[in-house]
Amino acid sequence: MYAPAAGAIHWGMDAATLEQALEQGRAREQQFADLTSYRLLESVGGFARGSVVLPGGRVLPAYPSIARIQSLAAGLPRQFDGPFHAEEKIDGFNVRILREGDAIYAFSRGGFVCPFATDRVPDFIDPRVFEEDPELILCAEIAGPDTPYMEGTSAQVEDDIGVFVFDMMRRDHAGFLPHAKTRGMAERFALPLPPQHGRFHPDDPEPLREQILELDSRGVEGLVLKAEDNGVRAKYVTGRSCINDIRVCGGQLLDLPPEYFTHRLMRLAIFLTEHGRTGDPEIERALGRAFLEGMADAVASSERIGHVGQHYRCRFREHANALRFIEHMRATGGRHVRVDPASPQPESGAREGYWRVDLERRFDRMTGTLASALRGDSQFD
Amino acid sequence: MYAPAAGAIHWGMDAATLEQALEQGRAREQQFADLTSYRLLESVGGFARGSVVLPGGRVLPAYPSIARIQSLAAGLPRQFDGPFHAEEKIDGFNVRILREGDAIYAFSRGGFVCPFATDRVPDFIDPRVFEEDPELILCAEIAGPDTPYMEGTSAQVEDDIGVFVFDMMRRDHAGFLPHAKTRGMAERFALPLPPQHGRFHPDDPEPLREQILELDSRGVEGLVLKAEDNGVRAKYVTGRSCINDIRVCGGQLLDLPPEYFTHRLMRLAIFLTEHGRTGDPEIERALGRAFLEGMADAVASSERIGHVGQHYRCRFREHANALRFIEHMRATGGRHVRVDPASPQPESGAREGYWRVDLERRFDRMTGTLASALRGDSQFD
Repeated sequence: MYAPAAGAIHWGMDAATLEQALEQGRAREQQFADLTSYRLLESVGGFARGSVVLPGGRVLPAYPSIARIQSLAAGLPRQFDGPFHAEEKIDGFNVRILREGDAIYAFSRGGFVCPFATDRVPDFIDPRVFEEDPELILCAEIAGPDTPYMEGTSAQVEDDIGVFVFDMMRRDHAGFLPHAKTRGMAERFALPLPPQHGRFHPDDPEPLREQILELDSRGVEGLVLKAEDNGVRAKYVTGRSCINDIRVCGGQLLDLPPEYFTHRLMRLAIFLTEHGRTGDPEIERALGRAFLEGMADAVASSERIGHVGQHYRCRFREHANALRFIEHMRATGGRHVRVDPASPQPESGAREGYWRVDLERRFDRMTGTLASALRGDSQFD
Repeated sequence: MYAPAAGAIHWGMDAATLEQALEQGRAREQQFADLTSYRLLESVGGFARGSVVLPGGRVLPAYPSIARIQSLAAGLPRQFDGPFHAEEKIDGFNVRILREGDAIYAFSRGGFVCPFATDRVPDFIDPRVFEEDPELILCAEIAGPDTPYMEGTSAQVEDDIGVFVFDMMRRDHAGFLPHAKTRGMAERFALPLPPQHGRFHPDDPEPLREQILELDSRGVEGLVLKAEDNGVRAKYVTGRSCINDIRVCGGQLLDLPPEYFTHRLMRLAIFLTEHGRTGDPEIERALGRAFLEGMADAVASSERIGHVGQHYRCRFREHANALRFIEHMRATGGRHVRVDPASPQPESGAREGYWRVDLERRFDRMTGTLASALRGDSQFD
């Protein structure tokens, strides 16, 4: 069982508050293996939606939204009043990792135990970090071609998945550990961090601009800027990442919220203006191709197999976790997830010992709209 | 006063039905100069939304929606069982023109008297057509760079506006006059028709495909296909017209319904697949540029004058109609229309005798979003 850190006498949430929240439908009980926990669907007792109440009333705080700036020149002096660090923004999914009892768990943004991340984290994280500080929470991004949630690959991970620890918290406290403390812990336990791109000043945007353009040319998503002396953070994404996102999701044009596309188009336009790249024919073509390639694949898929979807594969260390993941997908998977009935299957060769799961998300609106159009139906706008 | 056509003993709508519809808010009284009429906001007595009840209970039927086909190969045999005519589709706004008493009026799709179209129709239509048949209704498209409603120019009209009569109806009857009758009337009164592109058969799509590709290369919007022997119609648009629409409305990305963009992207993808043009770099670049040009203009406008909008100008024969139009814009103009306070102004030179009105539509969401982004606000998605 975990030992409370020395001096930690505050408890996250008392039993009466939790019970009332459960009765009101603002919290929900969940079970993963031996762990019973309660994820918050709304803010309760000062803890935001996505927080999780653990055994003993201890709380895993929600990971907060990071504000975005769209203009470097105007946004840096407005958001920062001192030096900040620029960390590479990883295009993956966000988990919070902690040890509870003898086991390590990874929680999704919404507060679910993520069977996939929970299973794979030990491949990347030295568990002794939790012996040093049992109260510790690692905030990490999981990225790569073989995650069950993300479309497309990441500039940082070519194969399978990678885990990048970008923040640390402690139980019951919503704030992040200071930058120096996080870096120190990461070094001692060789935790994988996102690439660090230096320290900058808000009144001198030029070096950061140059850094951004270099990242843009490599297809990197962007930067998270973290103030050195207070909790201020801001994210800033590259133009190329907007195009990449459109490319990998073009086949879901009608199934994603339209803001997915319009927000990225707006960011791209503002990025190009700020960096003097408007009218660049190479970028124009890349954007047009981004939309058209995904849609052409969708049309071809509709013609060939009668539906439009996206295939995913992922690997598990433990057979039991693969089964938990499949069950989790069945229970929560919107967008019509279909798990290959043969999964989980044992991998062979270099991956021997892992269990592979294959699944498909079907895009119902693309499927229906294309089927109707291609069989020659008439449509009224 | 109009004379009922010989033998026309049916009347469109009796007074009791109209009165009940007015009480229920399904019809609304409107006044234009001396004409009192009632536009239907919902279907009433068998007449669809957009129909107008005229003096004496006579009815101007609504112009029906024309179905769209997205695949020629599959759609032609499915929608047509005999020969059809292919007429150029004009990218403008739809009006229905009739004579009531001594005056000619043009009604918008929604059933408003359109002061602009009403004013300008005599420049293009010989009024004697209504002496020949006082029951006649001309269905026409008004297109060109100088309309107050349409963005961008039309392939068919380079200057000012043009009027294209594409259908004829008669009072109280929802159907269209037969093709031969329409053509005959148009010829005798030299009415302007859309370009005609021939007669085709549903079981032989190849000649029509060639025609479409030729129109596409000229930037024409598309075709309306009209069955020769029954009322079946279908429209089919070119890929280039989808790109054109995106280009002229890129600056309204956040202010138009997102379906404006997603539907056109889908149609373009299906068009390119059907005509073997997927992967064409020139089309990819044109699409990317279509999005980026309009947005770059919006960003520049936000930086320069603090808002995003679109300027329009139009001309009137009659000063009174210009004033009616301004009043109509004030009463109905969503999207924040601002009429230049100096309007109407007399034109000079070749346009002498006309009254010019200048107006701007402001795009509030683009304006607000860009102002916030460019002043460096942080934003949460």
